[in-house]
Amino acid sequence: MRALEFDGQLKFRTDYPDPVADGEIIVRVRVAGICGTDLELTRGYMAFRGIPGHEFVGEVIKSANRAMLGRRVAGEINAGCGRASCRWCRGAMARHCPDRTVLGIVGRNGAFAEMLALPDANLVVIPDSIPDELAVFIEPLAAAYEIFEQTHMARDRSVAVLGDGRLGAIVALALRAEGHLPIVLGRHRDKLDRLTRLGLKTQLESEIAGKFDVVVDCTGKSGGFARAIELVAPRGTIILKSTAAAGAELNLAPIVINEINVIGSRCGRFAPAIAAMESGRIDLRSLIDAEFPLDQWRAAFSAAENSPAFKILLRPS
Amino acid sequence: MRALEFDGQLKFRTDYPDPVADGEIIVRVRVAGICGTDLELTRGYMAFRGIPGHEFVGEVIKSANRAMLGRRVAGEINAGCGRASCRWCRGAMARHCPDRTVLGIVGRNGAFAEMLALPDANLVVIPDSIPDELAVFIEPLAAAYEIFEQTHMARDRSVAVLGDGRLGAIVALALRAEGHLPIVLGRHRDKLDRLTRLGLKTQLESEIAGKFDVVVDCTGKSGGFARAIELVAPRGTIILKSTAAAGAELNLAPIVINEINVIGSRCGRFAPAIAAMESGRIDLRSLIDAEFPLDQWRAAFSAAENSPAFKILLRPS
Repeated sequence: MRALEFDGQLKFRTDYPDPVADGEIIVRVRVAGICGTDLELTRGYMAFRGIPGHEFVGEVIKSANRAMLGRRVAGEINAGCGRASCRWCRGAMARHCPDRTVLGIVGRNGAFAEMLALPDANLVVIPDSIPDELAVFIEPLAAAYEIFEQTHMARDRSVAVLGDGRLGAIVALALRAEGHLPIVLGRHRDKLDRLTRLGLKTQLESEIAGKFDVVVDCTGKSGGFARAIELVAPRGTIILKSTAAAGAELNLAPIVINEINVIGSRCGRFAPAIAAMESGRIDLRSLIDAEFPLDQWRAAFSAAENSPAFKILLRPS
Repeated sequence: MRALEFDGQLKFRTDYPDPVADGEIIVRVRVAGICGTDLELTRGYMAFRGIPGHEFVGEVIKSANRAMLGRRVAGEINAGCGRASCRWCRGAMARHCPDRTVLGIVGRNGAFAEMLALPDANLVVIPDSIPDELAVFIEPLAAAYEIFEQTHMARDRSVAVLGDGRLGAIVALALRAEGHLPIVLGRHRDKLDRLTRLGLKTQLESEIAGKFDVVVDCTGKSGGFARAIELVAPRGTIILKSTAAAGAELNLAPIVINEINVIGSRCGRFAPAIAAMESGRIDLRSLIDAEFPLDQWRAAFSAAENSPAFKILLRPS
């Protein structure tokens, strides 16, 4: 099959072996999104080797469950070990199983290919009302909605989203969809302008001196946490959304002195994200910048690196 | 009055000016405890100048409220600005007021002296059933009980207290008093042995490879947070109790990937600590190593620095 392989650098191949079902389900990928994590992977994050890509929508083409054949699906990206002895897989928390694989990130080929394999339990059927190019946002939107699963935020608390990239944009729109009034703080005037046009409150991060009850770090930079500590009010909450690859020199004393609550937040369940999309509370169409066929991956990755791009899509099939 | 002054180094003075009431209450200090923070202050923490000491029990000798005269009191150490416009002072959160002073730590003389001044609202009358040498533990025990104010911990969650110093000992005993079964992880065999004799589960930190649902960092070292990240299970909680003075190089990715909750935790309300002492659920007498008159401060500070000492008391009056 055609696939984009990373073996230290990205390579387009037309002879990549098809995925083997081996008890799993085979999906033909219709659309895949390029995420900040994909760009990080190509810089060495997680020492990943194989086919990247974890935001996708596709069609089931092989399954022991005949009712699934032909269904349009997205997929939760963490696949637990599934052993009965595993407390995480038993407790519906396979996404924290220590022996898990992660689609296109850890030990499992991803979505920048014609086909991929995932366990049955990972797949979620997409309602007809959500078109392919929006369904590809279900995974990152679920990660944004994970915030609401982890903590209750009163609507009158002031919220800053730190970072004006693709993750910051999705998180800010999710917050607004749930009745909050976030301000996006970023370093890129062009991206902030795009978000202002979407009706979001924005400001250059360097111009901010105030304090916020909640700061969501979507910078993807190791310095993001330190800046969040500066921006959060006493007894406030910092939500860390971005896995910064490098270490950071930090003065932790303010976290203790100001009794800050720091919540690490990663992938989320798909159901709340799908429900928000279906209800029309959130429309992420305006974040799409361009679509490329898979063999134009160079242009696609280049576009994804360029400001003020938010979301670049690949069409492998 | 006699007082221990820090002006870059500690000095015993017999001619220190008596505190002026100026709307506050004057307390004659009967007993004061030496805390890890006091040792940090003498190494430059908070750039403090003045009389250190914030764990104390004393007797009210000057007050506009005559009913308070002669009463035995302890005192909350944070004194807010008290302005009606201050959201923290208004909201019964004066201990997070940005303009606060802190007894013996920030902009306010402390308890290593014959007398000290504090606002009326800070003082708490001590029940007769709690003797002086235990009443001095109310402040650090309140800091330990702050954990229960900030988060609900189910009794079946595994809890590790990281650090075998005075704070770790008090936190572990408070956890046990509230029905938890903590294990204390430390680096000092002699201190761990003392805690084992108090009926606590202990282990050398270097021998631990397992994961815990809750890790309370009481190390007082900047490396404590990094070690806590290694020791906490996915979706677990790290409670940061110690204000490490220096920065630390940290890989924050595990906090996000494993969705860890980090809770900064500092001073607490006195009432729950007093209630625990009165009920007999906790008895901290076994942590007292020695008492010194104030003029023997050199011997006292030296004893406080030496393992396996937990608590050294000063008697200024």
